[in-house]
Amino acid sequence: MSKPKVFEKPLGVKDYLPEAVTKLRNIEYRVLACMERWGYNQILTPTLEYYDTVGVASSTEDKKLFKLLDRKGQTLVLRSELTAPIARVASSLLKEHAFPLRLSYHSNVFRAIEEEAGRDSEFYQTGVELIGDASSEADAEVVALAIASLQAAGVGTFKIALGHVGFLNGLFQETLEGRSDAQLSLKEHLLGRDYVGYREAIKSLALTSEVERELIGVLRLRGGDEICEQARMVSQHPIAQDAIRHLCEVWDVLQAYGVSEHVVIDLTMIGDFSYYTGMTFEGYAADLGFPVCSGGRYDNLLSQFGRPAPATGFALKTNRILEVTGGEAVATPKRVLIAYDAEHREEALQLAKAKRSSEETAVVITQLVSEPEAWTKARSAKTDGSYEVCSIVYQEVITLLAQ
Amino acid sequence: MSKPKVFEKPLGVKDYLPEAVTKLRNIEYRVLACMERWGYNQILTPTLEYYDTVGVASSTEDKKLFKLLDRKGQTLVLRSELTAPIARVASSLLKEHAFPLRLSYHSNVFRAIEEEAGRDSEFYQTGVELIGDASSEADAEVVALAIASLQAAGVGTFKIALGHVGFLNGLFQETLEGRSDAQLSLKEHLLGRDYVGYREAIKSLALTSEVERELIGVLRLRGGDEICEQARMVSQHPIAQDAIRHLCEVWDVLQAYGVSEHVVIDLTMIGDFSYYTGMTFEGYAADLGFPVCSGGRYDNLLSQFGRPAPATGFALKTNRILEVTGGEAVATPKRVLIAYDAEHREEALQLAKAKRSSEETAVVITQLVSEPEAWTKARSAKTDGSYEVCSIVYQEVITLLAQ
Repeated sequence: MSKPKVFEKPLGVKDYLPEAVTKLRNIEYRVLACMERWGYNQILTPTLEYYDTVGVASSTEDKKLFKLLDRKGQTLVLRSELTAPIARVASSLLKEHAFPLRLSYHSNVFRAIEEEAGRDSEFYQTGVELIGDASSEADAEVVALAIASLQAAGVGTFKIALGHVGFLNGLFQETLEGRSDAQLSLKEHLLGRDYVGYREAIKSLALTSEVERELIGVLRLRGGDEICEQARMVSQHPIAQDAIRHLCEVWDVLQAYGVSEHVVIDLTMIGDFSYYTGMTFEGYAADLGFPVCSGGRYDNLLSQFGRPAPATGFALKTNRILEVTGGEAVATPKRVLIAYDAEHREEALQLAKAKRSSEETAVVITQLVSEPEAWTKARSAKTDGSYEVCSIVYQEVITLLAQ
Repeated sequence: MSKPKVFEKPLGVKDYLPEAVTKLRNIEYRVLACMERWGYNQILTPTLEYYDTVGVASSTEDKKLFKLLDRKGQTLVLRSELTAPIARVASSLLKEHAFPLRLSYHSNVFRAIEEEAGRDSEFYQTGVELIGDASSEADAEVVALAIASLQAAGVGTFKIALGHVGFLNGLFQETLEGRSDAQLSLKEHLLGRDYVGYREAIKSLALTSEVERELIGVLRLRGGDEICEQARMVSQHPIAQDAIRHLCEVWDVLQAYGVSEHVVIDLTMIGDFSYYTGMTFEGYAADLGFPVCSGGRYDNLLSQFGRPAPATGFALKTNRILEVTGGEAVATPKRVLIAYDAEHREEALQLAKAKRSSEETAVVITQLVSEPEAWTKARSAKTDGSYEVCSIVYQEVITLLAQ
């Protein structure tokens, strides 16, 4: 096997240069501050977790986990999401703290990827978990906070698609009783938003024309609160009825928050159905084919860590938001370049200190510097203002020179 | 091998609860803002790097690198420091940008540790690299910035020990010519600050009493600028003389910055001598036995990435600073708890919105919540103000209830 070239990075990872970092961190700061105003307190968990605990409990497919062995031969994973680690903390370090717990995070996460996929194997998530509250108010709170977070991040136009895993579970149990392969196949078509495949799969199932119509009709169950009424008519199965009732309560609370204009009910949207147990949602920004946030209720996770509790939450896909808001200018402080010779050293350094004290950026550069190119550039910058580092231009150049 | 218990974490990693995160991130924000005012722009590099490039080039001992295999069988490492990754970026993505480059970072780094060591295998560093400037002004700039960064981080009392690898290299080449094992042994005693071992090693070398006196005399070369004069007398070797001349220039510039009161020259302090090529320094906070920052000049690293250039920099050990400044209170916004029943939902949610808009923290809690304990607690909080999550207490409780 040939060695990688010196400038190469592993598959699917990135360097972020200053301009991108400023924007990414601005999103991070604003979103975390927003979450804090909603009472969510930030926690940090380790990059490495045990495979047998957090790895297995996470919502990530096993083959997408980055695994390594520790010195005792125990399998570790690079965290693939934060929900399972936070469930571990809620059940251990925070076990004496009464529910509900409101926790936030900003973190890099990892997914092992295939070479051809062209996807990121390391990316950032900013999210919350609301643990210990099973109510529709709690679900609405995290949806409303997702909306506030997207706004804080600078995403102008977006829609939240709101669904519930219970609706399809109930409907499929009613219409495809005992046919778990067929149920799974239909769910996978919906998960992949492959509606043509969904229709074809239904046709191949040899159902009565009434049931066929009912299952295909699901594809129309996307819209405002009128969908709640329509969905109630589709399935009488108690699981589906409970799901719709809960979802309509969430919708009511979202109206009280005054944010329902950003939300569409989408009963074809089931999220990761092996993990979520109730409401699920995804946020879509204008012109972007993939979600910028996703979340939902996961009432079975905490019990895996020994402290059974209902829970709900979401994660923003922070890198994707950077792509959406990429063009947004970030206010930067005034930047001053101070060029000096040995005779003016103290004067120059004290001037820089004063500039920095008043929140300006001051860079000092001296004639003694070993890079004549930089020095020439700094000198000429006085007239053409062209001195820049990583696309950052100085607005003022002060030269303190004897000649 | 027994499975880990559900609440267990891998060896040497930590969870940070909200109170610690607030303090850690405050240090991070303040230090990065300070570095920005000095013209250092933040970059982010990936957690995973190739072993053959960044892994080998890093200053970390091979056995302390966390290694894993990618799908093609290539060895990856979890980054152990940021200097080598930044050298890679300076030589690739930033290769069209003129020197000097001023770059900053805040990042977690990883070290594989032995079970008995009780050390962290993941911790945080906040640092800078100044690339493309060989001058003593550049070395002084990073030392002065380290001082400003420690002050920004809230470290009240500290000392920077300033040394130079060239002094001992020259002295040992002069006095122990050709005896590289003896030179290495003496350096390792000094690196471990084992002065007794250093003296004993000298005694065992069968040197003339004059040379013996000279080598033992090194241990007294710690103090202010008077050390420069004394050191010049110790060795006539050109490498040692150059080192002392450079160090004294750095000292002069630090005086012009007005920060030399925080600095002691310590010629026994050589840092990681296999990696640094010139000035080295370490910062010590009062009452703490280990350094809170370390840095130095590394002029041979960039050439390994195909863009030869002198460079200097430092990293704060951010977690240790958290330990030093642990007691410092962090200002938090006012926290309000709003308890409501179904009838007052809209009023409560709109009130919360208004509070959040004016930078207060507002948490809503409803009678409908599934945790009666939390509800009772919220109700009683009105009188005893005791509603708290993760040690965060609400300063105001507003109840909006029909009864």
